[in-house]
Amino acid sequence: MKILLIGANGTLGQAIQRELAPRHDIITAGRNSGDIRVDLKDFASVQAMYAQVGAIDAVVSAAGNLHFGALADMTPELMGVGIADKLMGQVNLVLAGQHVLNDGGSFTLISGVLSHDPIVYGSSASMVNAGLDGFVIGAAIELPRRLRINAVSPTVVTESLPSYGPFFRGFESVAAAKVALAFSKSVEGAQTGQVYRVL
Amino acid sequence: MKILLIGANGTLGQAIQRELAPRHDIITAGRNSGDIRVDLKDFASVQAMYAQVGAIDAVVSAAGNLHFGALADMTPELMGVGIADKLMGQVNLVLAGQHVLNDGGSFTLISGVLSHDPIVYGSSASMVNAGLDGFVIGAAIELPRRLRINAVSPTVVTESLPSYGPFFRGFESVAAAKVALAFSKSVEGAQTGQVYRVL
Repeated sequence: MKILLIGANGTLGQAIQRELAPRHDIITAGRNSGDIRVDLKDFASVQAMYAQVGAIDAVVSAAGNLHFGALADMTPELMGVGIADKLMGQVNLVLAGQHVLNDGGSFTLISGVLSHDPIVYGSSASMVNAGLDGFVIGAAIELPRRLRINAVSPTVVTESLPSYGPFFRGFESVAAAKVALAFSKSVEGAQTGQVYRVL
Repeated sequence: MKILLIGANGTLGQAIQRELAPRHDIITAGRNSGDIRVDLKDFASVQAMYAQVGAIDAVVSAAGNLHFGALADMTPELMGVGIADKLMGQVNLVLAGQHVLNDGGSFTLISGVLSHDPIVYGSSASMVNAGLDGFVIGAAIELPRRLRINAVSPTVVTESLPSYGPFFRGFESVAAAKVALAFSKSVEGAQTGQVYRVL
């Protein structure tokens, strides 16, 4: 397959690339690195990326920023960071991609454990991750041409514990390589409308 | 209790008012009707509403618009309708209200069944409703002063079947009065971080 991987430079993106590269052609895209530059927040940039990359069989996203911070200090603008980036950025991948992916292609988005297992400072993440899971199940039943869509919803990644560990006390972490298996299942399997919780 | 009810003019809002008014003081707010005018999309308007209403014990929302339409025709702008209105409009109620509600007060937001049981044309609703449920569980563990927050997630309401019925074939509808009971449970009970599915 020809697979477009967004966010290939991050911890998860690298693990996904290691998992998929032996069997597929990977084209990488990212804001500051990769074969193609893209700003997921900008729909025209997403459309331009698809035009540049040509025919592909799968879109895999390990990208998305949002604001972590106390609910007491949250503002519409700070909630808007995650809405524009991790949520609508990935939704943009689907809205534009549904018209250009090869028949039978797939989208795999990244959400996360906070959708259902919250932490302090994580109200935006809980909202964004849950919204992504909801979008995936809603979009799955409308996609044309046997296109598929799934979300991978991991708990905190072991490789990220040095930076995120203090916020996730008591959470058992998971290796990025294990999260990458869920991406493989989504891309190389046949399921759709699934949220793969990797715990 | 003194309860601020947003969207009192709608089908659900009227049922909630019938359920709560015998036991509480209800102040209504809405875009085009009610004791107070408010545009939930506008954070300053929400803050002005709270300043006008004074000390209250509960905020109950039965408000929120979003776009129903085919995924194939969805655009970032059409997805943005629900994000700005039903999602962030209700989040704005909490971000502003956390600083002004009486100790022990509560927020009750409205989400909906499409978060987990999708229909054609409902991808925005699935995203928005799921995002609201996620926000509620995330915000619940951070609210100060014994403030509480819950979501009510109803299936299609019987009174709305004349307009929405064709989109919800096979869904068993629920009377607005039954949905109002979940609002009562949230406001008059002591639970927090719950998503009450009314099916």
